[in-house]
Amino acid sequence: MPDRPAILLDLDGTLTDSVYQHALAWTKALELGGIKLSVWRIHRRIGMSGGLLAESLAREVGRELSDKEAAQVKAAHAKAFRAQLRDIRLLPGAKELLRHLTKLHVPWAIATSGALKSAAPLLKLVDPPAGVPIITRDDVAHAKPNPDLWLAAAARLSVPIESAIAVGDSVWDLLAARRARALGVGLLSGGYGAEELQRAGAYQVYEDPADLLGHIDELGIRAE
Amino acid sequence: MPDRPAILLDLDGTLTDSVYQHALAWTKALELGGIKLSVWRIHRRIGMSGGLLAESLAREVGRELSDKEAAQVKAAHAKAFRAQLRDIRLLPGAKELLRHLTKLHVPWAIATSGALKSAAPLLKLVDPPAGVPIITRDDVAHAKPNPDLWLAAAARLSVPIESAIAVGDSVWDLLAARRARALGVGLLSGGYGAEELQRAGAYQVYEDPADLLGHIDELGIRAE
Repeated sequence: MPDRPAILLDLDGTLTDSVYQHALAWTKALELGGIKLSVWRIHRRIGMSGGLLAESLAREVGRELSDKEAAQVKAAHAKAFRAQLRDIRLLPGAKELLRHLTKLHVPWAIATSGALKSAAPLLKLVDPPAGVPIITRDDVAHAKPNPDLWLAAAARLSVPIESAIAVGDSVWDLLAARRARALGVGLLSGGYGAEELQRAGAYQVYEDPADLLGHIDELGIRAE
Repeated sequence: MPDRPAILLDLDGTLTDSVYQHALAWTKALELGGIKLSVWRIHRRIGMSGGLLAESLAREVGRELSDKEAAQVKAAHAKAFRAQLRDIRLLPGAKELLRHLTKLHVPWAIATSGALKSAAPLLKLVDPPAGVPIITRDDVAHAKPNPDLWLAAAARLSVPIESAIAVGDSVWDLLAARRARALGVGLLSGGYGAEELQRAGAYQVYEDPADLLGHIDELGIRAE
C-alpha cells in the first residue's frame, strides 16, 4: 500500500456547483419527451449515467424509452444545460484542494458520469494540471453507480483501488465506491442530506471541497 | 378539540414544484449583490422569509446588507424567479389532496413565507376554492421560521393551533410548526432528505402531496 491514499474526485456537485442546473435541465428534457417528474426526484438521480437516469425515470412513470427517444432526451438535456453554463461556478475550495493535493504529491484524478462533451466546459473551470487523469462516461462501459469510473481512475494512476478515496456528492458516487472497494467520502455541495450520504456508505461527510481541505488530515493525508 | 384536525399547507415545494427555481433565482440575485454562495446553501434556506434569507446568507460571507441592498437583492430574486415561471408545475397530487380535504369538510388553509406578489402566479396554479384562507408574508410581522404564519392560518380558520397539522417541505416549516404548537408533517418534494425533516420535528414524512393523500388516515383524517 502506498503511503498516501490517492484521491478520486467526482465533478458535478463535487468540484463545480452544477447539480441544480443539471436537475432543471433534465426536468425540462424529460418533460419534452413526455415524462413529467418532480424536480426533487430528478435531483436524486444526478450523478448516475444519463442513459440510466432517463431510463429509470421513464420506468418510474410507466414508460419505456426507445433508443431514439433516449437519445432525444439526452440531447435536450445537453442543450438546456448549456443554456445555463454561464451561471455555473467552481465550488469553494475546489482549486485550493486540488493545488494542495498536487503540492503534497498525492495522486489524484477526476471521474465523472458525464460525457466529455458536457463535462468539457466544467473541466475548463477546474483547469487541472497536465497529466491528471480525467475519466468520463465515454471511457467506460457503465457510468456510476457501476464501479467502472472509479476503477478506471485508479488504474490510470497505477494505484490499488483499495487504498484510494473516492469523493462525491451523490449516493451514486458512494454506491460505486463501495462496489469498487474504495473508501467513499461525501460532500453536501450536491444538495443531499448528510444522513443520505452516510447511509450510502460515506466514511466522512464534508460540506464542500473547502471543508474537506480543512479536515484533510482526517483522511490520513499528512503534509510530511 | 374538533373531530378532524385542520390542515395548514405551505406553498413552494409543498403544493408547487418551485423550490429549485427559487434556489437558482436567489443564487443569481445574491451574486448580483456581491454575495457568492453555493446553490445548496441557498436551497437549505428556501422557505424562510426572503429578508431573513438574504440577511443570514450575507452574514455567512461576512457582509451586512443595508435596507437598500436587501431590497435590491429581493427585487433581483423576484425578477429571476419570474423568468422561470413557465417551467413551474403543481406537485403530483396537490389538486387531488385539496379536493379531498374540501370534500371531507376538513378545514384547510395555505400559509407561505413568500410575498403575495411572487406567490400569486403559483396560487393561480393551485386555484383554491373561494373562502380558503391564504396567508402570505404580507399578512404577518415575521415569516417562517417564526410561528406567525401558521398561527394566522389557524386563526383565520377559527381552529385551535394545537389540533392543526402544518405540512411543509423545509425545516423552517417544521421549526415554525413546533413554535406554533402545531403537529408538523414533512414532504420530500422540496429536496430535503427525510432525516433532516425528522430531526426538525416532522411527525411523518411523505414524498409529495400524492403520497400524503395515500396515507391521510395516518394523520387521523377519516372519511366518515
